[in-house]
Amino acid sequence: MIIHDVENFPNPLRVRIALAEKNALDAVTFKSVDLMNAEHRSEAFLAKNPFAGVPVLELDDGTFIAECPAIIEYIDHHFAGPSLTGVTPKERAVISMMQRRAETQVLDAIASYFHHATDGLGPALETNQNKTWGQDQQARAFKGLAYFDSVLAKHAYAAGEEFSVADITLWCGLVFGGFCNIQIPADLTHLQAWHDGMAVRPSIAA
Amino acid sequence: MIIHDVENFPNPLRVRIALAEKNALDAVTFKSVDLMNAEHRSEAFLAKNPFAGVPVLELDDGTFIAECPAIIEYIDHHFAGPSLTGVTPKERAVISMMQRRAETQVLDAIASYFHHATDGLGPALETNQNKTWGQDQQARAFKGLAYFDSVLAKHAYAAGEEFSVADITLWCGLVFGGFCNIQIPADLTHLQAWHDGMAVRPSIAA
Repeated sequence: MIIHDVENFPNPLRVRIALAEKNALDAVTFKSVDLMNAEHRSEAFLAKNPFAGVPVLELDDGTFIAECPAIIEYIDHHFAGPSLTGVTPKERAVISMMQRRAETQVLDAIASYFHHATDGLGPALETNQNKTWGQDQQARAFKGLAYFDSVLAKHAYAAGEEFSVADITLWCGLVFGGFCNIQIPADLTHLQAWHDGMAVRPSIAA
Repeated sequence: MIIHDVENFPNPLRVRIALAEKNALDAVTFKSVDLMNAEHRSEAFLAKNPFAGVPVLELDDGTFIAECPAIIEYIDHHFAGPSLTGVTPKERAVISMMQRRAETQVLDAIASYFHHATDGLGPALETNQNKTWGQDQQARAFKGLAYFDSVLAKHAYAAGEEFSVADITLWCGLVFGGFCNIQIPADLTHLQAWHDGMAVRPSIAA
């Protein structure tokens, strides 16, 4: 099993944390994609993922799996250990919903802000910026952070009382925010407390 | 079990097709949301889904599940019948990936075009349009259609040889396209053939 990714980038980090939670980092070979030199837009990489995103999971039978929730779905069901995506229909649905909210309202919103309203990855890669869109997404991200503060006022984790893939996505959103000056506002004390707990979690601190 | 939705809208249609595939339409009570009069932005509705989207599934214990993939995850695991989301880790991952591609590259791209670059739902509801963004998403949608044509040249369905939630999302994307003049281009014959097969599928034709 191979993961094609870029170390320390927010989306690859989602998959690496999921693997660490499953104690399975050693079961995977990591191959680095030279994204800053546009390797993700090369013919060879587009054969792995036509939409040019990292990470991509390559299974032993040659199947390529892109999109973090899909990769983590595989990891969660292939490896033993506590479930990241839920077991009962209700758990699965709540975690899926909260993972998606962490993605659309925080991680993806911050990514859109970064790529559209800041220098992003630089002019060679950011060839189609839309500053207004990026700024709207920054506003969405701050609303998303306030929403998760309200959730974490009532629950230990993003999708309830157990750690799940929703926490991984939210964490990686905050990591991405750290790249581009989107910090947790001081009044979001529940989100900050959750953040501080995540920071010392073995899969994240390691 | 209650579904709060708007009949004939593209996202509610995803959940209704999933229920029909599970032969479970009768197990659910539908409650109509008066979206054209902004009921989805009322305090009562925001208590069900703070992000104001339809459909929302209300479980018998009072839990609200928003986001179509999360609702369909629930339906798929709660009701009997052929799986819509896959059983093995590889099936689950491939279907999750392809569902997501149908969403981001087709359905959501068309929705963004509709809401940002056309009159959308009218000036009272479309209060923050970004025409350039909408037009970029229209271009993305046409690329997405071409991608699925290439997939359907090799496979019977969007995620392989079995019908899945990825087909539901792609179908609803095409339905949405029909609302706003995004038709299947004539050269995408594999996508058109798949479309024609879907149109007579009982869960869709009914």
